[in-house]
Amino acid sequence: MSVVPTSGPAAAPGAGDLFQLLRDGQPRTRAELAQVTGLARSTITQRVDALLAAGLIAPIGGTARTGGRPAARFAWNTASRVVLAVDLGATHMSVALTDLGGSVLAETTVGMSIADGPVAVLDRVAVAASEMLEEADQPELAGIGVGIPGPVEHATGKPTNPPIMPGWDAFDVPGHLGKTFDTTILVDNDVNLMALGEHSRQWSSHEHVLFVKVATGIGSGIIADGSLDRGAQGSAGDLGHVRVASTTAEEIVCRCGNTGCLEAIAAGPAIAARLRDAGGTAETLQDIVDAVRGGDVAAVHAVRQAGRDIGSVLATCVSLLNPSIIVLGGKLAEAGEFLLAGVREVVYQRSLPLATTGLQIVTSKTGIEAGVLGASAMVIDSVLAPEAVDAYVQRSRT
Amino acid sequence: MSVVPTSGPAAAPGAGDLFQLLRDGQPRTRAELAQVTGLARSTITQRVDALLAAGLIAPIGGTARTGGRPAARFAWNTASRVVLAVDLGATHMSVALTDLGGSVLAETTVGMSIADGPVAVLDRVAVAASEMLEEADQPELAGIGVGIPGPVEHATGKPTNPPIMPGWDAFDVPGHLGKTFDTTILVDNDVNLMALGEHSRQWSSHEHVLFVKVATGIGSGIIADGSLDRGAQGSAGDLGHVRVASTTAEEIVCRCGNTGCLEAIAAGPAIAARLRDAGGTAETLQDIVDAVRGGDVAAVHAVRQAGRDIGSVLATCVSLLNPSIIVLGGKLAEAGEFLLAGVREVVYQRSLPLATTGLQIVTSKTGIEAGVLGASAMVIDSVLAPEAVDAYVQRSRT
Repeated sequence: MSVVPTSGPAAAPGAGDLFQLLRDGQPRTRAELAQVTGLARSTITQRVDALLAAGLIAPIGGTARTGGRPAARFAWNTASRVVLAVDLGATHMSVALTDLGGSVLAETTVGMSIADGPVAVLDRVAVAASEMLEEADQPELAGIGVGIPGPVEHATGKPTNPPIMPGWDAFDVPGHLGKTFDTTILVDNDVNLMALGEHSRQWSSHEHVLFVKVATGIGSGIIADGSLDRGAQGSAGDLGHVRVASTTAEEIVCRCGNTGCLEAIAAGPAIAARLRDAGGTAETLQDIVDAVRGGDVAAVHAVRQAGRDIGSVLATCVSLLNPSIIVLGGKLAEAGEFLLAGVREVVYQRSLPLATTGLQIVTSKTGIEAGVLGASAMVIDSVLAPEAVDAYVQRSRT
Repeated sequence: MSVVPTSGPAAAPGAGDLFQLLRDGQPRTRAELAQVTGLARSTITQRVDALLAAGLIAPIGGTARTGGRPAARFAWNTASRVVLAVDLGATHMSVALTDLGGSVLAETTVGMSIADGPVAVLDRVAVAASEMLEEADQPELAGIGVGIPGPVEHATGKPTNPPIMPGWDAFDVPGHLGKTFDTTILVDNDVNLMALGEHSRQWSSHEHVLFVKVATGIGSGIIADGSLDRGAQGSAGDLGHVRVASTTAEEIVCRCGNTGCLEAIAAGPAIAARLRDAGGTAETLQDIVDAVRGGDVAAVHAVRQAGRDIGSVLATCVSLLNPSIIVLGGKLAEAGEFLLAGVREVVYQRSLPLATTGLQIVTSKTGIEAGVLGASAMVIDSVLAPEAVDAYVQRSRT
């Protein structure tokens, strides 16, 4: 519910709403904006002026002729502010600078260990981010988005019992980074942000998306009705320890203490172990991908079977969520068609026909950038929401 | 995105937003409304007058003393309009009249067959509803909500390939009822509406709810971030044909053509068949419930095992959706603790510990009324949304 004043001495009422129209990137004249919104021309002029003053829109070259007179066109100015996007993994971090359109302006990836704890890791983030901001021409920071490899209480930005992150439980990530950066700081689970990144950059026409990361672990991010579904504790999408329905699954013990978990059967370490058992040498995810790409039959077979096992869990997800697209990401998605074929085989066999009629199953297009793109998209969605734009416009005037 | 004029000659800008505040049922004075919203006193007076004129709020008995002067208090007037709520099953229909608070004013259940097709069934709905409206004092109809036992494209109100409803595919339900009733007509899947009914009446403090109907079939309705998740084709929540992970499940053939489907293993007909195989006489859902309540050991055992099988699928749903509550409804939920115990046993064993830390698993409190309560709630949510109230207030003035 939003009950906010719609008028006041210094306000530009509705500038935020008007701005949403221009976020499609299409330049428009004042007359066109008046026509689309049904607002009075004087109101449009007032709001356009406010957005211009705040730098959020800019006049663009060329004019349109309306009734013989040349009229200025305005478009969204994605360069007016920048966003810092941080993707923390178990053994490395990526820090990127994007514009308000989500385009990456600069990016760096450095090794670190998430197990060093939040203060050490976030201080390294702050150093890398500060350097990046200094090197950039653009000084005004709209916000910072951070992805971490564990469940997060999104409202507070605090990790909740993350299994591979000693010292991070309930740590105030925004509070700590806030000592260095006075801006909006939002935190989410890394797979949620990969889902958001892939969705915002590649599949924004889909309202219901299931993004599945297949790497050292297996997890997913759920887009429902166009936005992330994080669940009650922020653990929604956590598929790694779902039980696989197969006659042999029960014999496989998982590090979580249960048997038959998807991760213990179909994630990278399980595939690598199977290949080693068969006389191979695969240790890492890259080894598996290389072997598949090199045509190693055992690797192709193992990855395809992992696809089937993942597919048997995704079939349930399809019946439950009825997405219009499943996107497979994470390192093992680089094994491409073989993983995809296994997943498709079982999903189309086991899901409701109605739910698979229009279902696409594809591999990620944003690849390793999905995480930072999602961290950026999360911040952009927040700072360019109508009320946030109204507040920004008002601050710009004072 | 909403870009609507916020002012105009006959508008009461923001009356709809102000009204949302009063929907908690708490009476408030103009001064209190001004304080909560930060709006000018003159603006509050204008909006309160508009809502009073439209009948949506009413002065209530007693006054508050503010600064020595008695001040009138206003509250939401749930009696200002009525909602028709229709719940269509395979063999019966329930038609109810509710107020805008969702309280049932009148209700009737009549036998019919959904297989008679949409024209015959909806014409019977129209007759029953017209009689009910005539008998009621209150003539103004806010809208009609209809639940049907199959997937629905919610935006158009058209069923999509409903398996047990010959003749209903893509039938324009709102269009047909609209010939008799000139009002808002919304249609949804029956289990979605049961979820909405149970959520709105009993668990509205929970933002993430999984409602599971266990009867002749098994289905679910998903509340995520406080609203229904219907999926891309309206089939979200359809759990009946999800594969059960057990060593014997694979041998059980389902009417859908697959093996090991939850419905073929744990729904009413499967339980009844198992009881008959063991020498019992159970035919109907009621027979099963009666046998359990009568302490029949075979029935208790079968229902508990059905609970375990349902639980094995719900464990995956819990990991995927991270709800804070699972509500078991439908006829078999009347078998109470035995079904619940089976579900709990497996969900707590197989779901992620983080996702079950705060998880409640309970049986439905609204019982057989869940469907009509949900149909009513769907209409109320729509006709009392801020923009809808603004439009209604404006119409009331002209």
